[in-house]
Amino acid sequence: MPELRQNIITRDWVIIARDRSRRPNEFAVPRAAPKPLPRYDPACPFCPGNESMTVSEVFRDSDGADWRVRIVGNKFPALLPDGETERRIQGIHRSMRGVGFHEVVIEHPRHDLSPALYPAADLARVLLAFRHRSRKLREDPRVEAVIIFKNHGEAAGTSLIHPHAQIAATPVVPNQIRRRLEEAIRYFDDTGTCVYCQTVREELRARERIVCETPHFVAFIPYAALSPFHTWIFPRRHCSAFEDIFDSELEDFAGILHEVLLRLHLALGNPDYNFTLRSLPAREPQRDYAHWYLALVPRVSRVAGFEMGSGMYINPSVPEESAEFLRSVTLPTQS
Amino acid sequence: MPELRQNIITRDWVIIARDRSRRPNEFAVPRAAPKPLPRYDPACPFCPGNESMTVSEVFRDSDGADWRVRIVGNKFPALLPDGETERRIQGIHRSMRGVGFHEVVIEHPRHDLSPALYPAADLARVLLAFRHRSRKLREDPRVEAVIIFKNHGEAAGTSLIHPHAQIAATPVVPNQIRRRLEEAIRYFDDTGTCVYCQTVREELRARERIVCETPHFVAFIPYAALSPFHTWIFPRRHCSAFEDIFDSELEDFAGILHEVLLRLHLALGNPDYNFTLRSLPAREPQRDYAHWYLALVPRVSRVAGFEMGSGMYINPSVPEESAEFLRSVTLPTQS
Repeated sequence: MPELRQNIITRDWVIIARDRSRRPNEFAVPRAAPKPLPRYDPACPFCPGNESMTVSEVFRDSDGADWRVRIVGNKFPALLPDGETERRIQGIHRSMRGVGFHEVVIEHPRHDLSPALYPAADLARVLLAFRHRSRKLREDPRVEAVIIFKNHGEAAGTSLIHPHAQIAATPVVPNQIRRRLEEAIRYFDDTGTCVYCQTVREELRARERIVCETPHFVAFIPYAALSPFHTWIFPRRHCSAFEDIFDSELEDFAGILHEVLLRLHLALGNPDYNFTLRSLPAREPQRDYAHWYLALVPRVSRVAGFEMGSGMYINPSVPEESAEFLRSVTLPTQS
Repeated sequence: MPELRQNIITRDWVIIARDRSRRPNEFAVPRAAPKPLPRYDPACPFCPGNESMTVSEVFRDSDGADWRVRIVGNKFPALLPDGETERRIQGIHRSMRGVGFHEVVIEHPRHDLSPALYPAADLARVLLAFRHRSRKLREDPRVEAVIIFKNHGEAAGTSLIHPHAQIAATPVVPNQIRRRLEEAIRYFDDTGTCVYCQTVREELRARERIVCETPHFVAFIPYAALSPFHTWIFPRRHCSAFEDIFDSELEDFAGILHEVLLRLHLALGNPDYNFTLRSLPAREPQRDYAHWYLALVPRVSRVAGFEMGSGMYINPSVPEESAEFLRSVTLPTQS
């Protein structure tokens, strides 16, 4: 029998289609043997030596003469940092100038790697770059929200192979983010508890959806996962904004994110995925009810008319089985 | 300069990325010359003569010995009509049995056609089947919402070529649908007006986003279209539920939907698309603030991490230009 489950954070219902669910390993990507990628591609704008192919560098983490992480302007920006946000209201139509930032984080000098494959220590440098740049962007009074996200692979919306993430800073608080805050406030008012802290506590007690954990973080498949292998990484410490992560937590965060990505890579054969850091709007101070986290969605199933018409997802997998499958992956011995 | 626009119905902001927008004709699907499809496929479960390959027929529109439209059970149903909905609450986790209906509407006997290509009169029979079946499903006390939708093409989530749509009946009011009602109530309380009626009025006054119109319906690109060629078809008459469409309006609705699909087909080269009928939850009576409509989304651009992390869409097209392009399509003379 199928089961409906409610996501306590968004209030969205998901259909866990047990009867049409596939075994976890059946979500592995059917690919021809991947052609090995070159370490360097002379045509790639993100490869070392081709820096002149990118525009307006705003951050560089260097190691002697070589860079390790760079942040540059997006060549096709969705938002531009020019002038003031001007709101217009005409009848029922509300608009504003598309003021904001849209940047690319070049994660690594190597063309052929992805975060699952380069060392966790290198991923820590990427997260440090995220924190640095996001803090700066949040200081701009025109910025209401900073969205940090990664698209890995074509199904996830990128055609550029070189490992990169993106940062967008918007001049409005997106409705989705505001809605989640409202739900978190309601839960806090009803129970006196942060709904995210409560979620971590209950997941650690139940254990059946845990993928892995570290001293400061817990990775798990949400109870009402939207799609197969949808994964959340929550900090154990209550903290509203990723930008306020402690130095002492950054390496640990890189470690668990690296482990989750590596488990997915090995379990499903380098699936395409998106991840995003769900943090507090830029103008909000720390809140007792708000708690940042990372959400990861492998692109192994498709969204269609039912999801469009209802906002509900049909998940053809069982969260507990997916978590068990990811836990069972044998990791290579650290070299 | 990019522009942000707010969807008054959902309150979601969309980025209209003018600077990276493509010309309307650049969204045409780059395909090899399509291989002609057979009128009949002996392996297709939806072709006439293969009725035994489908399960539990619940509706048949016949013309003598031949059927014109059939509704059958989905072979891989996401919801099942067995027993009672039972709610369980355990800590923060809420679930219920996946009780509901999930059916397939076989739109036409011909294997090789789609609604853009078969006659509008045949589409009217499909809409009549939608209305008939949805009315029946809404009588079931376990049903809270009926979602009628179509996935056309692989990018839209179907691999079956034979023209078909789907009907799902859920035992909860999906959160997305409830949210939109809340917004519509708020608008009504503030202004005394249905926000959908107001939208039709303003679009007819502005005209620049109109695709086509008929005595009873108006088709237009939303001011804050989520993606290229996102199209809405609104009834002019205030009516909360598609299920309450008059007989006298059905043919007209089929005519405008057919025309919109044909314009898209000719303009973009048979793009994949989803459409859904946005109607009132099953247990609600007619409401002054609620107004049904059809939403159509061609799958010509991709959703990625930014949309996931913010709920905001980046639309690489300008709604007014898309509407003009669709208006300029030359329709074949009616035979």
